[in-house]
Parts: sequence; C-alpha cells; structure tokens
Amino acid sequence: MSEDKLKIERIHKGTVIDHIDAGYALTILNLTGFDESPNLMTIGVNVPSKKYGKKDIIKIEGEFLNEMQMQQISILSPNATISLIDDYAVIEKKKVKIPHIIKKLILCTNKTCITNSQKEPIETEFLVLEEKPLKIQCTYCDRIYKLEEIMFTSKQKTEKKIKQKIQL
Amino acid sequence: MSEDKLKIERIHKGTVIDHIDAGYALTILNLTGFDESPNLMTIGVNVPSKKYGKKDIIKIEGEFLNEMQMQQISILSPNATISLIDDYAVIEKKKVKIPHIIKKLILCTNKTCITNSQKEPIETEFLVLEEKPLKIQCTYCDRIYKLEEIMFTSKQKTEKKIKQKIQL
Repeated sequence: MSEDKLKIERIHKGTVIDHIDAGYALTILNLTGFDESPNLMTIGVNVPSKKYGKKDIIKIEGEFLNEMQMQQISILSPNATISLIDDYAVIEKKKVKIPHIIKKLILCTNKTCITNSQKEPIETEFLVLEEKPLKIQCTYCDRIYKLEEIMFTSKQKTEKKIKQKIQL
Repeated sequence: MSEDKLKIERIHKGTVIDHIDAGYALTILNLTGFDESPNLMTIGVNVPSKKYGKKDIIKIEGEFLNEMQMQQISILSPNATISLIDDYAVIEKKKVKIPHIIKKLILCTNKTCITNSQKEPIETEFLVLEEKPLKIQCTYCDRIYKLEEIMFTSKQKTEKKIKQKIQL
C-alpha cells in the first residue's frame, strides 16, 4: 500500500505567505489569529529551499492580511513574501517591510517602564535599531530587545477550543 | 502570473496523522511537541473530506509517535488514523484509541483535589465516562470534565523561539 499524496490544490482566492523563516509558520498563525480560521489552509514547515536552505510557507483560502498582521510577520520573518491570489492568479506580490517604529505589537517587559503603568497606560512603541538580526529599543525606557527576547501583545482569542496550561 | 502549486512530496519515512477533527491539527502539533521538530512537515487544515465534511491532516518526515502522543491525539481527535511510512509505503495503519483511564496527561483544575497538593503531589488520573463527546472524571475528587474544559499538562518546551504573552 503506497502512501497517498496530500493533494494541495491551488487556492482560488486568498493569500500565500512564502519564504517564512524555517520553523516560524506556526508561531505566525498563532500570532495573526489565522489558527482559528474556518477556511482551508495548507502549511509547509522546514520545506527545502534553494535560497534559504529551509523555509516555511502558508496558503490560506479566503483570508487577507491587514497592516498589523503584515507587521507581525515582518518581525518574525523579514524575508517573507506575500502573494494575493484571485481567480487562481497572483494579483499582487509584495515583500514584508519592518516599520521604523513598531507600535502596540510588542510588550516592554521592564516593569518600571511607563507602558506598564497601572494608572496611565501608554501604548508601547519601539524603535527598530537593526533589521537582521532584529534589535529594537523601547522609546520610553530605552531597554533594548533582540528577536528571541520579544514578547508579543495578542488579542484574547475569542473562542479557544482547548485551553492549555504549561505545567513546569 | 499563475499561483504555483505547493509541492507536497510523499514522505520517505515518518508518520501521517489523518482524519484529525477539523481545526485541531495545530493544537495537536503544540501538545505533542512536533511544532519544534526541525524536520519537514506538511499540514492541511479544514481540508474537504467526504466522510467528515472537513478534516485536518499532518505529515511529518522522520518522526514517530510515542504512546503519550497517541493518547493526546485520541483525546482531541478520536477518529484520527495514524500511518507509519517507510520507504514511501504504509507499513502500519492504526486508529487512535482513547484509554479507559487517562494518566498524567490532563490537569484537574479543582484546587482542593489531592493531585494539586503542594506537599504530596499525586499524578492525575481520569476515568473516561464517554468517548464521543468526551466526558472524563477525576478518580480522586470525582470532578467531571468535557473536552472543552480540559487543561493539558505539557512538558516545558526546551527551546521556545518566541515567547508570547497574551495581553487581556
């Protein structure tokens, strides 16, 4: 008995996120909220790539990225390309672009930073010092973060199917 | 410009998890720890299925499931089938089976339950009362849980690339 091929049909109308840094596709789905989409998605993780050795790729039917989601992807995978598909054809292709200033998307973990003040909540703002590898600085308390130190803000998931708790 | 097909090659040696309940593939990857595998994975979410309407499917190169991972999948997707692949052929195919008693995998959220005692930590144990839809009962405090109320125990991820924090 031979293993069946998984049929990956071309998507009719939707988004392809390609050249994601290897291993980041699932984090991107979680962060952007697409992990809760009821639509068809195909995801390749650690796919062989001529240019980057390995890469991830996400195809989502019937979903399009907003500006916030584009920025989230740019932080995690600065080489990612976004293709918009309509009627099976690529109608627009663009590279993600890290903004010079990242607003709201990232938390400052410095407890004494004014963005963590209980009384006067101020939205976070980070200056991008270096793009690859990423280095950002809180514009309020000047604390510097590398990619692996970043904590993202995230809207509360409206309907989380399974609650999970990490037991240390 | 036409959108390229995502080439999903058959896997050489590894595991195919098919007939996953629609929308549960990413939770299964997270719970089983395969989300941190460096190996090639292809994932289909909300794939049209004759039998179930929609289903998820996971193909992982070079990885095999242990008993704990099989049980985790059985809890989330009692209809899942596991195929072991070697040399591009299915060498074994089996359905997951929910055990009568689930040990260690799930937390009892009753704070006064002896499994949450600080002094005498006892491993959790749940009796499976009903399989579909799932209903389980803590053998120590008798509290009953449905699938959507379950909290899973999970080993601490050794190397989490991006820490994420949910800001409510």
